[in-house]
Amino acid sequence: MIGFTGAGIDRADNLRHDPERIAALAADPAALILRLAGVDPVLDPSGRLEWEPLGGHDQHIFLGLSDGTPLFAPMPRIELGRTAWSVFAILDAMAADEAALWGGARSLIEWHNRHGYCGICGSATAPFRAGWGRRCEGCGAEHFPRVDPVVIMLAEHDGRVLVGRGLHYPPRRYSALAGFVEPGESIEEAVARELAEEAGIAVANVRYVASQPWPFPGSLMIACIADSPSDAITLDATELADAMWVDRAEVRAALDRTPDARFQAPPPYAIAHTLLRAWLDSGQPQLAPAAPAA
Amino acid sequence: MIGFTGAGIDRADNLRHDPERIAALAADPAALILRLAGVDPVLDPSGRLEWEPLGGHDQHIFLGLSDGTPLFAPMPRIELGRTAWSVFAILDAMAADEAALWGGARSLIEWHNRHGYCGICGSATAPFRAGWGRRCEGCGAEHFPRVDPVVIMLAEHDGRVLVGRGLHYPPRRYSALAGFVEPGESIEEAVARELAEEAGIAVANVRYVASQPWPFPGSLMIACIADSPSDAITLDATELADAMWVDRAEVRAALDRTPDARFQAPPPYAIAHTLLRAWLDSGQPQLAPAAPAA
Ligand SMILES: [Zn+2]
Ligand SMILES: [Zn+2]
Repeated sequence: MIGFTGAGIDRADNLRHDPERIAALAADPAALILRLAGVDPVLDPSGRLEWEPLGGHDQHIFLGLSDGTPLFAPMPRIELGRTAWSVFAILDAMAADEAALWGGARSLIEWHNRHGYCGICGSATAPFRAGWGRRCEGCGAEHFPRVDPVVIMLAEHDGRVLVGRGLHYPPRRYSALAGFVEPGESIEEAVARELAEEAGIAVANVRYVASQPWPFPGSLMIACIADSPSDAITLDATELADAMWVDRAEVRAALDRTPDARFQAPPPYAIAHTLLRAWLDSGQPQLAPAAPAA
Repeated sequence: MIGFTGAGIDRADNLRHDPERIAALAADPAALILRLAGVDPVLDPSGRLEWEPLGGHDQHIFLGLSDGTPLFAPMPRIELGRTAWSVFAILDAMAADEAALWGGARSLIEWHNRHGYCGICGSATAPFRAGWGRRCEGCGAEHFPRVDPVVIMLAEHDGRVLVGRGLHYPPRRYSALAGFVEPGESIEEAVARELAEEAGIAVANVRYVASQPWPFPGSLMIACIADSPSDAITLDATELADAMWVDRAEVRAALDRTPDARFQAPPPYAIAHTLLRAWLDSGQPQLAPAAPAA
């Protein structure tokens, strides 16, 4: 399972538009609300998310239906842009489907905290659509949750792939390079631009591999592999501390957490892990045909 | 070429952080600024974008370097959420690379107009990073351009694919179904959710095909194909006026604009066109291997 995927609930989006239906679901004695510590997950002894009866909570987000049970998340005030490192230890212990359910809620909660005012007119906004939007109390504009697409990719050359170290990574950690998709470019163009900028690598034949939501605070990670005709690296030192080419044995040792591995790979809940594993398992230079140029 | 791709300029992102370098580029007598009619493109007699000397413009966005020439876009006040239908006739006449350059600028201009105030504290914001961000004059928060990922997809069953009519489509127009990717879901999960919601179709084996920026105002279109075990349609009448299964001959007639085609396909600059063409050209049920489930 790819990290943060497989929440496995029915989002029942169509109900969000219907305040009466949502009120009825919230009044259902079976309705549950996610327990959180700030915005971090709270786990029961078996490592599953804790829930409690919805009861008196009034500001909440409708997450969907799980076997008919209405699930909600709270809408607390949180401190923005702060992610305690302890949450990553918790994630290491969580099943992907549980992390997915929490991650979606976390993204929405942070989005609400960042959008208390209207970008168009500066007036206060208030939640609507069961917590899946905010409406401006001044100009009436409707605002919807933001999801930031990010490309994360391996350049491949002669049986090796390029991994890099961000400026603030843990010791020995290397990962796939990544960057936000900008207005006016495709996924394939963003992959080529980021590899050129950060490592001076010119790639062709970009292949999509997999995707994952990443709730810090709300990215959509899009993992790709591309061919590099050269292995010469020109590092952008403002973005990366180092970059290097690694072969399949080195990637396998890193993913298996072998003590003498050349580098430390990202944890299994990160799509860089999925991407390295996919490259390893493919055992061949090409994972998927290129996108058509129609 | 996929619509709105191939702008073919060096975005030179690293320069955006350096106000002195940007000022020097803006002072370059060769520097050009995009001519716009409101936010729509202005074409020269050969159908290319018109540019003029940057001269006195002060509020502008640095688009990048084209063979060393600094290119900028203006930052006009625009009316939000209004897209004149006439722009689509212009797009039909534009090369994809020109449309890409204009489209990126259009997305940024609309984003600036929608973010004059800080969502966190309601204070006014001002552009920084050469037009690629806005900084709050109250709390100092930095805000960056928004790109909304959208899945657009064909369900495939027994040699036919599903196309649908939105509520406000031109006569006879059918297209691939589409919807925004939400917080907490992958591309593959969004494809499955949208097909289930809008057409009652349960799919498996989602395959990525291609992507495209769509500047109305700032989407990233992600085109996929997925297998449906059934051809039974349950229409969501709040989203779609109709949906139907079409075979390869019917898709070919639509893409070729044959007068007696069963439906009218989207224009070539829309990725739904690319997607239908890719399915037609594939001539086989599977375009690419499924994403790994590692
Ligand atoms: Zn407003
Ligand atoms: Zn502010």
